[in-house]
Amino acid sequence: MDPINNGEEETSKKEISRCSIDVHKVAPPPQRSSFEKLKSRLKETFFPDDPLRQFKGQPSKRKWILAAQYAFPILQWGPNYSLSHFKSDVVSGLTIASLAIPQGISYAKLANLPPIVGLYSSFVPPLVYAVLGSSRDVAVGPVSIASLILGSMLSQQVSPAKDPLLFLQLGFSSTFFAGLTQASLGFLRLGFIIDYLSEATLVGFMAGAAIIVSLQQLKSLLGITHFTKQMGILPVLSSVFHRTTEWSWQTILMGFCFLAVLLVARHVSMKRPKLFWVSAGMPLASVILSTIIVFALKAQNHGIDVIGKLEEGLNPPSWNMLHFRGEYLGLVIKTGLVTGIISLTEGIAVGRTFAALKSYRVDGNKEMMAIGIMNIIGSSTSCYVTTGSFSRSAVNHNAGAKTAVSNVVMSVTVMVTLLLLMPLFRFTPNVVLGAIIVTAVLGLIDLPAARRIWRIDKFDFLVMLASFFGVIFVSVQLGLAIAVGMSIFRMLLQMTRPTTMVLGNIPGTNLYTNLHHYKDAVSVPGFLILSIQAPINFANANYLKERIMRWMADYEADHITHHHQLQGIKQHSTTSLHYVILDMSCVSALDTTGVTLFKDLKKALECKGVELVLVNPIGEVIEKLERAESEAAGSIILRADLVYLTTAEAVAQLSSAINLKMMM
Amino acid sequence: MDPINNGEEETSKKEISRCSIDVHKVAPPPQRSSFEKLKSRLKETFFPDDPLRQFKGQPSKRKWILAAQYAFPILQWGPNYSLSHFKSDVVSGLTIASLAIPQGISYAKLANLPPIVGLYSSFVPPLVYAVLGSSRDVAVGPVSIASLILGSMLSQQVSPAKDPLLFLQLGFSSTFFAGLTQASLGFLRLGFIIDYLSEATLVGFMAGAAIIVSLQQLKSLLGITHFTKQMGILPVLSSVFHRTTEWSWQTILMGFCFLAVLLVARHVSMKRPKLFWVSAGMPLASVILSTIIVFALKAQNHGIDVIGKLEEGLNPPSWNMLHFRGEYLGLVIKTGLVTGIISLTEGIAVGRTFAALKSYRVDGNKEMMAIGIMNIIGSSTSCYVTTGSFSRSAVNHNAGAKTAVSNVVMSVTVMVTLLLLMPLFRFTPNVVLGAIIVTAVLGLIDLPAARRIWRIDKFDFLVMLASFFGVIFVSVQLGLAIAVGMSIFRMLLQMTRPTTMVLGNIPGTNLYTNLHHYKDAVSVPGFLILSIQAPINFANANYLKERIMRWMADYEADHITHHHQLQGIKQHSTTSLHYVILDMSCVSALDTTGVTLFKDLKKALECKGVELVLVNPIGEVIEKLERAESEAAGSIILRADLVYLTTAEAVAQLSSAINLKMMM
Repeated sequence: MDPINNGEEETSKKEISRCSIDVHKVAPPPQRSSFEKLKSRLKETFFPDDPLRQFKGQPSKRKWILAAQYAFPILQWGPNYSLSHFKSDVVSGLTIASLAIPQGISYAKLANLPPIVGLYSSFVPPLVYAVLGSSRDVAVGPVSIASLILGSMLSQQVSPAKDPLLFLQLGFSSTFFAGLTQASLGFLRLGFIIDYLSEATLVGFMAGAAIIVSLQQLKSLLGITHFTKQMGILPVLSSVFHRTTEWSWQTILMGFCFLAVLLVARHVSMKRPKLFWVSAGMPLASVILSTIIVFALKAQNHGIDVIGKLEEGLNPPSWNMLHFRGEYLGLVIKTGLVTGIISLTEGIAVGRTFAALKSYRVDGNKEMMAIGIMNIIGSSTSCYVTTGSFSRSAVNHNAGAKTAVSNVVMSVTVMVTLLLLMPLFRFTPNVVLGAIIVTAVLGLIDLPAARRIWRIDKFDFLVMLASFFGVIFVSVQLGLAIAVGMSIFRMLLQMTRPTTMVLGNIPGTNLYTNLHHYKDAVSVPGFLILSIQAPINFANANYLKERIMRWMADYEADHITHHHQLQGIKQHSTTSLHYVILDMSCVSALDTTGVTLFKDLKKALECKGVELVLVNPIGEVIEKLERAESEAAGSIILRADLVYLTTAEAVAQLSSAINLKMMM
Repeated sequence: MDPINNGEEETSKKEISRCSIDVHKVAPPPQRSSFEKLKSRLKETFFPDDPLRQFKGQPSKRKWILAAQYAFPILQWGPNYSLSHFKSDVVSGLTIASLAIPQGISYAKLANLPPIVGLYSSFVPPLVYAVLGSSRDVAVGPVSIASLILGSMLSQQVSPAKDPLLFLQLGFSSTFFAGLTQASLGFLRLGFIIDYLSEATLVGFMAGAAIIVSLQQLKSLLGITHFTKQMGILPVLSSVFHRTTEWSWQTILMGFCFLAVLLVARHVSMKRPKLFWVSAGMPLASVILSTIIVFALKAQNHGIDVIGKLEEGLNPPSWNMLHFRGEYLGLVIKTGLVTGIISLTEGIAVGRTFAALKSYRVDGNKEMMAIGIMNIIGSSTSCYVTTGSFSRSAVNHNAGAKTAVSNVVMSVTVMVTLLLLMPLFRFTPNVVLGAIIVTAVLGLIDLPAARRIWRIDKFDFLVMLASFFGVIFVSVQLGLAIAVGMSIFRMLLQMTRPTTMVLGNIPGTNLYTNLHHYKDAVSVPGFLILSIQAPINFANANYLKERIMRWMADYEADHITHHHQLQGIKQHSTTSLHYVILDMSCVSALDTTGVTLFKDLKKALECKGVELVLVNPIGEVIEKLERAESEAAGSIILRADLVYLTTAEAVAQLSSAINLKMMM
């Protein structure tokens, strides 16, 4: 600090003493029993949305209605469901139905299950979700990731080739336990775990998954017959380029024509919102068109891969196939847990994303229960693990779905298909469905968001990259895990190394602001005023002690040396440090290690002849320090003349004390 | 709120407008490049103690001395080492030496290594530590926990009985990698991981370990020959009571006599600090006395277990025995990692505890490097994993050790023993050494601390119990892991559910304090003033939005209803909510999800015709919001008339705005 500045200080000191106001004492917090505290803490933790609020003061009849609506969201949006809604739901429903069939088949193959199980899984679960689910865009069905994990985990112990029936039973059993896991997570109000999927994580996850899913569509787009079952980018690319012999020009031609058409349609709709129907109708249109082409040209004989013949009939019951005992119980529970949590992650992530796009709210806990119950019911009707599907929801959203009715439409379509229409889809070429999926997911790569994250927060950008590359090169679950881990690590670091600010007075006022932010703020001679910006606990108590000591050393370095220049003498001058004032307004919690910090600090300061002053400690802090005092004799921290409500008052009071010392 | 209260509000409003002060605008933070920010962040994270500070502005010669002192703490305390120090160091050194021999033997047995290796490990490492270590009380040597883990992990793949030489080589190799792990943790300045051992965790850990160690001494105290090698309380007790046939009354008699003497001595010294030498000298005295008794009475022939004959000679070199390749590399690295970290945990925990008792400072990073280098050197001189020993340091401390010289004395004694004195210790009964250990560790069960923790913080008490019972019933490492995990979970919860306070004005002042803490504070009609007490990020953004909405609903519920009583009309009355003021003083960080929160909140409030006002946002928050604004068009959050430096100014300005509205 330069001499001029010091001049200011002197004036500022006068100012303070002039505009010093009458002192208000720090009141002890209102008495609350440990039980009350625990209760409110638990409420904040598990019921922050206060779901029962709407019931307060309602007539009991109304209460019942509300309860029903809470349990079955369909009762909320059902009543004011309009024809226009229905139209768009039918369109989108048919579109995703046209996806559901090939996806169901291929994903069931991924899980080493019979293809038809994939179709079954697109019939029952959507109906359940339509009743229980609170998202309007999510289209449920089997998903690639869950299918992969289920298949690989089970086949580690049972060979699907040797013992298909047992394998099928284990598949259904795992589905049951997956559902159980999901439902109980929701029931135990642990929905807040989804908050740990930050925006950055999701942007990266979506982009990565989009790329993986589109790459996997190369199978159908290039007409490759032998394709990897892994998700990673490398195996996919290798099986693309090691199978060049299998590429069929007819397929490629057809595929990229339709892909071009679809992309153009999407582009048009994005430019001209009025023309949304172009992109909404195009997928279904191209399915029908391509089917006709194939049928007309007998193209299936010219290397174009079609869905082909499928047996007919509805879901048979499968509750008699569930394993609740026996040697494989451990296996199915483990598999259920993993697939359950991972498919839940995808389902919730998808649900949240589209909810954010249309700015409506998805209740994490209810959503988890919906997905869970859906899978429990599914497991007893020959369905395997289903959740909010990434690609399908994208298509659903693009096709302009309005409510969960699109799921019903899909389900009905699938049912009709299962019963009658199989022959019609016989000639639908897989390549077109591939093109539809690619078009859908490409729209989920959000470059603007990525740029915004880069500009706002570099670390979040790192997190985004981590989840992106994790998903692409390793696996979806690991990608997410790394991203979430990084985010948590950063939080812990913020806690371990909290901000401490040196406050200075703005001359002529009672304001104390960050000395290093506000240029017109000046430090008050004789005082070191620090604001601690985090709860004090075991993780940061050591750091804080050292940091405060460092601030003191800095103060001495500044003032003493330069006081020498001014007067040449030191001891007990006005500028030598008399008080360290800690602004505790932001210390929202304190643990035993934190309490010890204050004792140590007090002791350390006394050695240097400096007093420790607290400003505006919150209730909990006061309580804990009092309890600590009450039995530990010795230096008292909460002495009346060492605790103030505002910094201004503390400074006003104590600077007069300093002046007294000076006189003597 | 009751009418009277409302009356107060009206008055308070006048008050405010009267004592409203001139407005200070929120300044943009000083410009700093991302690199500068990163640099200071890294410094705070890894060099909070600012180790280079002492070098600043020193002559280069002095710098060299300081550097040397920093690297070799012995140079700090060496120069002013006095004779009195030496006396007490000799006493304590001899005492722990008398422990080092039987402990070395028994722990080496635990690790399935030849007994003599245990003695070697008490010779070289202490010398290294004396030079590098920064604790004055820690006595280094083999420890039970590390020995157990080393032995069990290695014997999973190699049989010590079948292939003793290979096993020995793997033992030394694991020791090398353990040292490498420890040294690199220190070198990478990751010492702050020890901060995560909170006071509560340590109190529980120490008590638990003390009980386990003492129970294990029942082997020697009861003269049991076949004893479990496990640490858990249950196996120990079972082997105590299933071996009653092996109990020898002579041993028990002798043991409990000496135990009584030692406890009395310790009690005396605690009551009369002047008589410290009673407890300090007693262990050595009893070793000598008991040896003489045994020798005189030929007691070894009457069921009293003695150390017995040991071969003579110093540590042979063992660097040629280290495995850096081959099939066992993975095994030794894994074993080294686990034993390294766990023994480090014990060493640092012990070091910290005694440093706290004598209130001096132990630099975690330096300590880790010291222990690490000690083990690396040890691994090439026929020593296995060593660290600050729990029981030995306790004895060392009780015997009044002043500096690390006691380690040197111990080491020299062990050397002399290895060379010449083996015969003398031949008749020392293990029972007495057991008694000494028990006496030492019992002093580490800190019941007052436990009571204090219970009174100050219930959750910390839970943590303490977790680590206590974890150590007793499961294992030391798991006990610690659970305790640390709980503490971290609590931190995350604090972050996920941050405190939000409703602020009210103290009539006649510019002060705004917690409405639910300060009874004389009243809410300002038309305003909802909230203080957010944590960084805003992905983990709490959702919660905060919901919580703020709830506060608003509460406000409406209070004011509107009761305004109806007063005037019967509602819309745009003074009491209906016009502004939500967020006091941002405590929001020390913001991530992209946090930025999104403000946009959502702004939108949500505008729907209700309420404005969002920010008070005293810190530099980082301002920057990030600005960046977000700059490209996202639409509702601006940082509008000049919606950001203030103090709540008082905001209220003063905005209430006039409300009055204007009223007029129209």
